[in-house]
Amino acid sequence: MISCGKQRAELASWARGLEQSALQQMLIATSRPGIISFALGMPAVEFFPAEALAEATACVLSVNAGVLQYSPPLQSLKQHVRELMKRRGVNCREEQIFLTAGAQQGMSLLSRLLLEPCRSVITEELIYTGFQQVLEPFQPHVLTVSTDAETGMDVDAVERHLRGGARPGFIYSITDGHNPLSVRLHPSKRARLVELAEQYRVPIIEDDAYGFLCYENPLPPLRALSERWVFYVGSFSKILAPALRVGWLVVPEELILPLSVIKEATDIDAAPLSQRIVNAYLDTGQLPGQIDMLRTQYGLRRDVMMRALAENFPDAARWMKPDCGFFAWVELPPVVDVDELFRRAIEDEHVAFIPGHAFSVNKRQGGMSSIRLNFSHPTTTQIEEGIPRLARVLKSLLS
Amino acid sequence: MISCGKQRAELASWARGLEQSALQQMLIATSRPGIISFALGMPAVEFFPAEALAEATACVLSVNAGVLQYSPPLQSLKQHVRELMKRRGVNCREEQIFLTAGAQQGMSLLSRLLLEPCRSVITEELIYTGFQQVLEPFQPHVLTVSTDAETGMDVDAVERHLRGGARPGFIYSITDGHNPLSVRLHPSKRARLVELAEQYRVPIIEDDAYGFLCYENPLPPLRALSERWVFYVGSFSKILAPALRVGWLVVPEELILPLSVIKEATDIDAAPLSQRIVNAYLDTGQLPGQIDMLRTQYGLRRDVMMRALAENFPDAARWMKPDCGFFAWVELPPVVDVDELFRRAIEDEHVAFIPGHAFSVNKRQGGMSSIRLNFSHPTTTQIEEGIPRLARVLKSLLS
Repeated sequence: MISCGKQRAELASWARGLEQSALQQMLIATSRPGIISFALGMPAVEFFPAEALAEATACVLSVNAGVLQYSPPLQSLKQHVRELMKRRGVNCREEQIFLTAGAQQGMSLLSRLLLEPCRSVITEELIYTGFQQVLEPFQPHVLTVSTDAETGMDVDAVERHLRGGARPGFIYSITDGHNPLSVRLHPSKRARLVELAEQYRVPIIEDDAYGFLCYENPLPPLRALSERWVFYVGSFSKILAPALRVGWLVVPEELILPLSVIKEATDIDAAPLSQRIVNAYLDTGQLPGQIDMLRTQYGLRRDVMMRALAENFPDAARWMKPDCGFFAWVELPPVVDVDELFRRAIEDEHVAFIPGHAFSVNKRQGGMSSIRLNFSHPTTTQIEEGIPRLARVLKSLLS
Repeated sequence: MISCGKQRAELASWARGLEQSALQQMLIATSRPGIISFALGMPAVEFFPAEALAEATACVLSVNAGVLQYSPPLQSLKQHVRELMKRRGVNCREEQIFLTAGAQQGMSLLSRLLLEPCRSVITEELIYTGFQQVLEPFQPHVLTVSTDAETGMDVDAVERHLRGGARPGFIYSITDGHNPLSVRLHPSKRARLVELAEQYRVPIIEDDAYGFLCYENPLPPLRALSERWVFYVGSFSKILAPALRVGWLVVPEELILPLSVIKEATDIDAAPLSQRIVNAYLDTGQLPGQIDMLRTQYGLRRDVMMRALAENFPDAARWMKPDCGFFAWVELPPVVDVDELFRRAIEDEHVAFIPGHAFSVNKRQGGMSSIRLNFSHPTTTQIEEGIPRLARVLKSLLS
């Protein structure tokens, strides 16, 4: 072994400051035993179709050892995805479907395809932190817009950016089941946003990780309005199980080849075993029933959380009933220090959430007096027990 | 549906020219039924431990549905990797092991960590095309060095680059079982290369995809000589099965966190089901026997290919017996047009290989009169049948 002192390899400049995200640090703090957590954005283990997936896997592995070899992305899974998209009100062709290792990879590949140094992007001020991580290596100029609690993204502000000369690589939209804001984009804003994309020739990356989990009146996503300017990101993580790591994109056909080249460079664009497992499960026809069950069960947890909030939270707190997705977003009086609330909630009442500013693109410029509460992972009993505990801490900070 | 004419989204400039690689196009041409292919670099399906992997999978899925949830990278698999590295002559700690979705992802993550616009890299002129794809988005200045057929990479040329002032992001080394050149780096060159890395503070990315498949006198990889300046890339694709998509890195401990942040952005750095399957298989203790079996079987195929080449190829052709890996590299007289050989081999004799120039970093500046022959995928019967057929085409071009 050669001795070499304290020298270190020189990292790319953007990577030198990389540290564990505030969110991850919080997740570690909230994973202590005995804590009721409304922090994590995870699906509930008890709703995974574990037995059916085990049978699907056994079925795949009993066919022949060839399923373990390098092979092209699975055409039959693309057929299933096409059918699934119809349930979201989207007609697409298999030639427009690109299979990914989950929604995160889909967004990462699209960003690599569309971004280069100095290009800008348009996003809301408060968005999924994983998408902020996707943007980081490209260091784009992020043009933010606000979000209305009832109608979603400020599309007029998007227009002002575009009219003002911005030529962003894309606009990022979480159209349904917004993470973290839980709002859905109003139908009239959907139409207007797609018109702007078309007019200014700027694609929209539509993150639909939660779109299949609408509890009332599902609306078709933006992709139903434009097959050319909306690049749709889908995932099996929330409707089947995250550890499978299977998702998909629906994009204009001419993007499939460059995406495949980029994915090949990233992880070899071959069908992993998990694609075959998902495919075999979908062959059984159980997914529509699974999604219906999830909507019922998660809808119930949402209702229990809404009731608990109404019964326990002070009048000064405000929230909307989420139509879709995994989260409730609660606005607190500005006098509440959410970081103090976070610390005291964990220490005094053993209950956790995520402070709203953790989702702020411009580092604590939004969400300073808001909190995100997850209702998909805790049981109804935990929700009924945890919300009053959180309310106690909140009231003590307000008194 | 909004009509939108022929407008297209503007891609990142480096991605605009992306097209299917020459290699991929060739692979499609060579996958016609009836063709004996020495083209693909795939392991043999018949040697996959399919039954044991099916049992491991059933075992994993019978534990509890929690294995399907988001969860941190699997610590127990890191313990197994540490033991496996000992079999390669490398002592490392679990804190230095980073789990990946295969070697390709490992190299992609390391490149993202180390490269930025305008930074250079040092590689041999002829290397694994997948690594060239990894480099593409960064458009680095690639400083190439030649490769000696008997002793490997020209380390003096590496030194000349460094002494001349080059400060590359890294040096890329395929130390054992070189793809495509099948050479192994001479022990004295190993020591010298690591000394240069240390002296000039330039890390080496060591691609050891084939290192466990040495047929004679295995040598420890570069990582055994430096834990600070060698970033080791390992994979289960060749010793277990590619569709699992599980590999690993061994790097200085301080790189684990930034790698994790980058992987989180790429595909969520959670343990996929496949990590658990590999882990459960390794728990059974069958991997050392599996590797021994592969060395025997692939070694046999290599011997059959060597004999077939000796008996059938013209005297003007030259090749070395590979100590390790999946390939033989055959130098032909410069008069042979390898593209013509490729076409005629497929059309007249239904036999395929990869022209050497497909691996050239500087587009056809190397390998112009060489061919790469794979011996891991075809059976001994196919090798005995295919090599004389290829020899017939070759002789017809020489006569």
